[in-house]
Amino acid sequence: MKNFECMALRYHGQYLELLDQTRLPVEEHWLKIQTVDDMYEAIHSLRVRGAPLIGVSAAVFLALYAESGITENDFLKATERLRVARPTAVNLMYAIDEIKKIVHQSFEPQSITQVAEAILDADKTLCQKIGEVGAEYIQDGMGILTHCNTGGLATAGRGTALGVIQTAFEQGKKIHVYVDETRPLLQGGRLTTWELGKLGIPYTLICDNMAAALMRDGKIQCAIVGADRIAMNGDFANKTGTYGVAVACFHHNVPFYTAAPVTTLDFDCDNGLEIPIEERTGEEVQGVRGAFGKVLWAPENAKVYNPAFDITSAELVTGWILDTGFYSQSDVEDGALRRLQNK
Amino acid sequence: MKNFECMALRYHGQYLELLDQTRLPVEEHWLKIQTVDDMYEAIHSLRVRGAPLIGVSAAVFLALYAESGITENDFLKATERLRVARPTAVNLMYAIDEIKKIVHQSFEPQSITQVAEAILDADKTLCQKIGEVGAEYIQDGMGILTHCNTGGLATAGRGTALGVIQTAFEQGKKIHVYVDETRPLLQGGRLTTWELGKLGIPYTLICDNMAAALMRDGKIQCAIVGADRIAMNGDFANKTGTYGVAVACFHHNVPFYTAAPVTTLDFDCDNGLEIPIEERTGEEVQGVRGAFGKVLWAPENAKVYNPAFDITSAELVTGWILDTGFYSQSDVEDGALRRLQNK
Repeated sequence: MKNFECMALRYHGQYLELLDQTRLPVEEHWLKIQTVDDMYEAIHSLRVRGAPLIGVSAAVFLALYAESGITENDFLKATERLRVARPTAVNLMYAIDEIKKIVHQSFEPQSITQVAEAILDADKTLCQKIGEVGAEYIQDGMGILTHCNTGGLATAGRGTALGVIQTAFEQGKKIHVYVDETRPLLQGGRLTTWELGKLGIPYTLICDNMAAALMRDGKIQCAIVGADRIAMNGDFANKTGTYGVAVACFHHNVPFYTAAPVTTLDFDCDNGLEIPIEERTGEEVQGVRGAFGKVLWAPENAKVYNPAFDITSAELVTGWILDTGFYSQSDVEDGALRRLQNK
Repeated sequence: MKNFECMALRYHGQYLELLDQTRLPVEEHWLKIQTVDDMYEAIHSLRVRGAPLIGVSAAVFLALYAESGITENDFLKATERLRVARPTAVNLMYAIDEIKKIVHQSFEPQSITQVAEAILDADKTLCQKIGEVGAEYIQDGMGILTHCNTGGLATAGRGTALGVIQTAFEQGKKIHVYVDETRPLLQGGRLTTWELGKLGIPYTLICDNMAAALMRDGKIQCAIVGADRIAMNGDFANKTGTYGVAVACFHHNVPFYTAAPVTTLDFDCDNGLEIPIEERTGEEVQGVRGAFGKVLWAPENAKVYNPAFDITSAELVTGWILDTGFYSQSDVEDGALRRLQNK
């Protein structure tokens, strides 16, 4: 495996290291990933997060694991274990499938490493392209709402939705980003603020429930979010709360975009109803916990609903920003996403 | 002043006591209110909260203050100081105005006490009536969304929006309440859950950003919220995030009600644009603090927007549930709220 370093993932000849995103912005702690359990735990506990970065991390880990001299049987067990670490992350399934295709022919660590390196490099290139495609839709003077974290922490490159914003900013457009804090895990409040601060892009942090009023008050001219899985009809799964953003945009006639690599498309999934929704522990809603501390404010016995994702239906989406181009609602209705399968 | 005890306010012959709502549900701590500063601080820091209860508390405090043998001049200074403790709370202005009307004739503590007792008793009766009016619109089997806290902790009686829910429940209707946690101050997560638990009403706590998806999934058949101030055209101010709930309801064709005493009407306010919005410290959004602990997760230098309220426009409201009756959109368009001024 070649050496490399991105914002939240690096390898310098010994072991894979992941920036533990649960500890940001309090501290920048790099985790050593040396066992399958380490990797599973890092994905499951959201220490590594963002659909693309999860896929890249798993691929690189599997390559290093194969290089370490284990048996084909142990290797296949590892792929099965990692596959279920995050059920909604289609990029994880994609990365594992790509690697298993090679192993199916013959179990050669060198070939696995080539696949992992290709996945890593492709992700960087994808981010670059997504940024260029999407920045066309960001105009000077815009207020832009974003949800969750979709930047350099979520990918091997500059990110998806946040990569679009960064690209527009680098083009000299004066923009202002409104950052949804993104309850319950606060990826917006903790991570997107941290990244935007590093990049010097002006932003305002808000609670998720404030976005609709800002749209009504004319402060937000477009919203751009990521996607964890996109169905063939354009429906997509993304961080819980995305659907509410889409509804508010629709009501206020504010353009709503999702930005993602083409690897986020699930060609086996016709529409959003087929996407499984991961439900997480109620404690995340009863309080907050992280490197910043832990508090619980709700009654201990409170019944809680805590879906990690929600599904946004295609009719609320103004455009799908992929590395392969921009797709409008009529493009998607005409089967444009399905046609990307053969590319 | 006569002795009395309600859920969050009591007097037993010595001094006014307030249940410190910032400490719930961790502990039930009663504050002694002995000075104007005590009362100002309790209102300003949301230890006493809920528009009706703020008005009742201020009235009872002023009566006890007058009874303590202070001068008319000191009394008037106290009214001016309390008036600005919470700029959006029209019930506070109303209570103070009622008392000043009497003082204007002559400064007699006994008359002030009569006014305060009347305000206290009226609030209890109002809650009862609001509950009866509103419960007509709650059907057996409904999932009901509510935002913030509007129950016995917010009034001298059983509350407004939550009082409607309690009344429907007592009528034997099988209902399920979805409780918005209500960032940033978490009145839903801390207080509404606590009250519903005490009342034995089934509920599920959610993050604010999950409500829209629950509506789409058919789990929510109506939403009912309180109001801090209602303009003559039906626009109203309420806890930040209320507008987003209204937009989501409108999109999903889910009835959206506001429940409030007639004292919440501001006859000098034609529409929502005239209602001032209190902006609070950014720290509330950068983290959380309370009796449960304090954590900050956002970067310290993060720029934050933190309006305490938002304005919901009348066209999103299915009905206004007041103690004087139910008003539909066409009633309100016909000036029904304005006509309540002379009653």
